[in-house]
Amino acid sequence: MISEDYRSMLNGKSVIRQLSEYATARGAEIGYENVFDYSLGNPSVPVPESFTDAMIRLLTEEDPVKLHGYSQSQGIPAVRQAHADYLNRRFDMGYEAEHLFMTTGAAGAIAHAVRAVTAPGDEVITFAPFFPEYIQYVGRTGAVLKIVPADTRTFQIDMDALRDAFSEKTSAVLINSPNNPSGAMYTEETLTALAALMSGMQDRYGHEIFLISDEPYREIVFDGQTAPYPAHFYDNTLTCYSYSKSLSIPGERIGYVAVNPRAKDADIISVMCGQISRGIGHNCPPSIIQLAVSEVLGDTADLSVYETNMNILYNELLALGFEVTRPGGTFYIMPRALETDSIAFCNKAKKYDLILVPADSFGAPGFFRMAYCTDTDKVERSLDALRRFVRDNY
Amino acid sequence: MISEDYRSMLNGKSVIRQLSEYATARGAEIGYENVFDYSLGNPSVPVPESFTDAMIRLLTEEDPVKLHGYSQSQGIPAVRQAHADYLNRRFDMGYEAEHLFMTTGAAGAIAHAVRAVTAPGDEVITFAPFFPEYIQYVGRTGAVLKIVPADTRTFQIDMDALRDAFSEKTSAVLINSPNNPSGAMYTEETLTALAALMSGMQDRYGHEIFLISDEPYREIVFDGQTAPYPAHFYDNTLTCYSYSKSLSIPGERIGYVAVNPRAKDADIISVMCGQISRGIGHNCPPSIIQLAVSEVLGDTADLSVYETNMNILYNELLALGFEVTRPGGTFYIMPRALETDSIAFCNKAKKYDLILVPADSFGAPGFFRMAYCTDTDKVERSLDALRRFVRDNY
Repeated sequence: MISEDYRSMLNGKSVIRQLSEYATARGAEIGYENVFDYSLGNPSVPVPESFTDAMIRLLTEEDPVKLHGYSQSQGIPAVRQAHADYLNRRFDMGYEAEHLFMTTGAAGAIAHAVRAVTAPGDEVITFAPFFPEYIQYVGRTGAVLKIVPADTRTFQIDMDALRDAFSEKTSAVLINSPNNPSGAMYTEETLTALAALMSGMQDRYGHEIFLISDEPYREIVFDGQTAPYPAHFYDNTLTCYSYSKSLSIPGERIGYVAVNPRAKDADIISVMCGQISRGIGHNCPPSIIQLAVSEVLGDTADLSVYETNMNILYNELLALGFEVTRPGGTFYIMPRALETDSIAFCNKAKKYDLILVPADSFGAPGFFRMAYCTDTDKVERSLDALRRFVRDNY
Repeated sequence: MISEDYRSMLNGKSVIRQLSEYATARGAEIGYENVFDYSLGNPSVPVPESFTDAMIRLLTEEDPVKLHGYSQSQGIPAVRQAHADYLNRRFDMGYEAEHLFMTTGAAGAIAHAVRAVTAPGDEVITFAPFFPEYIQYVGRTGAVLKIVPADTRTFQIDMDALRDAFSEKTSAVLINSPNNPSGAMYTEETLTALAALMSGMQDRYGHEIFLISDEPYREIVFDGQTAPYPAHFYDNTLTCYSYSKSLSIPGERIGYVAVNPRAKDADIISVMCGQISRGIGHNCPPSIIQLAVSEVLGDTADLSVYETNMNILYNELLALGFEVTRPGGTFYIMPRALETDSIAFCNKAKKYDLILVPADSFGAPGFFRMAYCTDTDKVERSLDALRRFVRDNY
């Protein structure tokens, strides 16, 4: 019989998806270039040529049986070694190949990381605002997602609220910095305090509490900063990465879990992930994509457009009187709406062909998200609509 | 804390894996060309050039942002449409794009299909001998895998044993034809009888019982035959496919679920699979691989070597007095061992650098599997070792 559980999910279409479909339909009417679609977080810049070159070289020069062969479920050994070497150079870590587990993007990484360090009924703490898919990513493992309310002043961590969220059942804390949807990047101070609090809770409860650090936006950081590397601050860290944003290849589904060598059971977590794969149909990420990314480690697409767009929007939003935290990275910005009901606010914006996403489903009611992964020209053309929208309504 | 559940799986290394590692280690001593390694079912022929050409064309001619962009979780619409059209031409079916769900290979396909048509505690029936990963593929969904004993005379289905296996809790029957490990292909008679029995059980229990048909070996069929298409025989069929064997690209993780348009709820099962993906980290199969396979539908690698190898081995095994069913397809053959304990039998074979896999873990104790996806030259060179092994020991 059809699963009633999954059938019942069909009714709950995501707000983002609805708005994106509206934008597409509206685009069919007036031309998509005239729809200021800030709904979807899809990278808008091309993959670096080095990646394309690596793919073509692999296709033309390598033995096809080897090239397209199964990788081990943990990933191709040489690819894992190359990742360990790269991460060690970049972040001064002590990874070996055995600490890497190649995945089909960040979704695949989190699917494995959560299962590796939780038992059914265990609690995983995350922080509002958060990527709504976390509810499925965590909830469907059998663990329970607990949300710590947002510190809406800075979008760092409200440590008192976090302290209250821990319990005997807490097995993991899930962070996402730089953050979707707020654009905030956790500071060294935040990560230091987080690590101290988590260490104390490990002592209190007498068991490990893992930090699962979801870092697909690690390379999109503004103002010449670099993102502090959470595994530096806390031993029991599983770093989840995706190349979707840094290389602009979201469809190719490639990323990894990197197990901090100083973590408890660091030597077996990646092997355990291989076992987890067997139950969720993962097997291994595509071989050719594994090989190609390992040839361009450290390369990124030209990500500068995101900072350009952020500055344009941030300045305009400030000038229009919005309360808004300046993003440290990503391609998102999350201002407070100009009325309490951010859903009503975003609905009114649609009349100006501005597609804004109410942040209620991200756990930040009263705010809205703009995904500015789009041409700078279009961002500039949207400003007039934004001004008219605000002037006419508020 | 580390998951004790997954940690406990680390002790159970598969027999195939152990033997494959032994073969690799032995190869390091005496040269791998001298190890007659029949352990692993890895395709041994190159991908067709048309696939490589399609990949290179996509990489050089398409807009990279579009090419590498997210696909919908059900798959790229044009890819799904192309699959529907192809399957309709080939199998005289009535698929529309909405009936297709693109997956990361057969493992991904089964992970979705089982979840779509079962609830936790439901029973899924399969048949010995079977691919041992089914235990994980099915068991980790929450459903219970029930094994019908093999008909070791023909490796078709023992219908009486199947009838006894049904219960109120049966939600699905999982078949794999042509079969790993036996090489048997279900005849039209078998599929007709299976469909009749399943239809009767649907009536008896008053609910749907889905046929999940795992068909990665559909294109590797011998003696000029074609594999009967199970969805033709039974309406409630979910066809699970992988291009791993037909295109010789097992590492690239691409396949699909095709929902029979005549199945109950045929219009929503693929959408439900999209929901299932959210909980298991699947998202979408790699975009470029989706696009490339859709450009070469109907093409295959040169699969003729498998039939050549099968004939050589089958004739030699017969001549040596083995009881063996002639494979209808795949690149496996599964003779009865020459002593009751097939593990002891395979251990003795190692002294002749013959790597044979006892079929106990496939649910066929007393038999052994040979995976002859290798060069014909090596198969021929192995015959002397096989003869010496038999002569010296039996």
